[in-house]
Amino acid sequence: MIIRIVKDEGPITGEQIADRLNLTRATLRPDLAILTMSGFLDARPRVGYFYSGKTGNQLLGEHIRKLTVKDYKSVPVVCQEETSVYDAICTMFLEDVGTLYVVKEGGLLVGVISRKDLLKSSMGNQDLQTIPVGVIMTRMPNIISCRVEDSLLDAAGKLIHNQVDSLPVVKEEKGGDRLEIVGRITKTTITKAFVELGEGSSV
Amino acid sequence: MIIRIVKDEGPITGEQIADRLNLTRATLRPDLAILTMSGFLDARPRVGYFYSGKTGNQLLGEHIRKLTVKDYKSVPVVCQEETSVYDAICTMFLEDVGTLYVVKEGGLLVGVISRKDLLKSSMGNQDLQTIPVGVIMTRMPNIISCRVEDSLLDAAGKLIHNQVDSLPVVKEEKGGDRLEIVGRITKTTITKAFVELGEGSSV
Repeated sequence: MIIRIVKDEGPITGEQIADRLNLTRATLRPDLAILTMSGFLDARPRVGYFYSGKTGNQLLGEHIRKLTVKDYKSVPVVCQEETSVYDAICTMFLEDVGTLYVVKEGGLLVGVISRKDLLKSSMGNQDLQTIPVGVIMTRMPNIISCRVEDSLLDAAGKLIHNQVDSLPVVKEEKGGDRLEIVGRITKTTITKAFVELGEGSSV
Repeated sequence: MIIRIVKDEGPITGEQIADRLNLTRATLRPDLAILTMSGFLDARPRVGYFYSGKTGNQLLGEHIRKLTVKDYKSVPVVCQEETSVYDAICTMFLEDVGTLYVVKEGGLLVGVISRKDLLKSSMGNQDLQTIPVGVIMTRMPNIISCRVEDSLLDAAGKLIHNQVDSLPVVKEEKGGDRLEIVGRITKTTITKAFVELGEGSSV
């Protein structure tokens, strides 16, 4: 009922709400405190209470938006441009990952290879031992990436909207536009975060 | 403070809580109602209030646990046991999926083929046009599946714990143990649900 009153008449003071409900302001105070703390109402000093417009769903959303790439990223598995497609496939199986990142010295990101890229090239009748991954990889600047300080939600949105299975987590190297790879975020990462949230054990 | 009192002394009546706080029961009633409604406390008539043991995170988890496979499943892409590995790879690219389900007449599920299975067999020096997928697929009863009425959280947990990218959604055919495939749940499904929750727009 408080939410309904504030929704209809806000901004409205605590005293006015108490009037509407035939209660004293003291009686109402704890309810208002809980509704404000839990995010359903906003309070502005000397103005009154506003309806925040937030439903339970939106409050859940706020919680999710606080999760960061930093807390969820995992270790990237890398190879070099000269690595053969055959060796790249072996590395993918050994490390049980769906994407390899191609780097130069210093961990600088130059390309990305997915299971899909490798499957495509293994269908052609070429000798996989002699083709280097540099020939088939997706190159900078066509790589979709994220940063340590991004929200996990933004990273998940990029995975969906760009239809990729994985994002490299990068940081800028000495102010230039050369990117160093420091992690990866995959659909597995997001699925794990979803399970943690559902089990009430998230960060 | 109410939560702390109930945690320490529960089960405890509303009157006893009011005593501890030097308040009347009437003053306390709205707080107890909100704490009970929001799930922090449990109330049992003629016994009193219990601490539910649920933190904010756990209550958030309850919201996630209400999402069902039924509302999120997508359409399965299928092939037959006789389909060649070559054609299966083409179907996978055309439909842009990571898993194909192998069915018999009536949509009965007999096997699962992943991008990983196809990549493995395409590395051998075999003729992909002549090997049927029946030879390389994972067969029943080794297929991890879920049902329409399962929670999305349980499905996500199965994806993580069994290290698979996708689950067929099945239903039992005429009381037998033959399973009909009616959908699929993938890490993409879960990532989309995560994005929807984060944007406050979930089902």
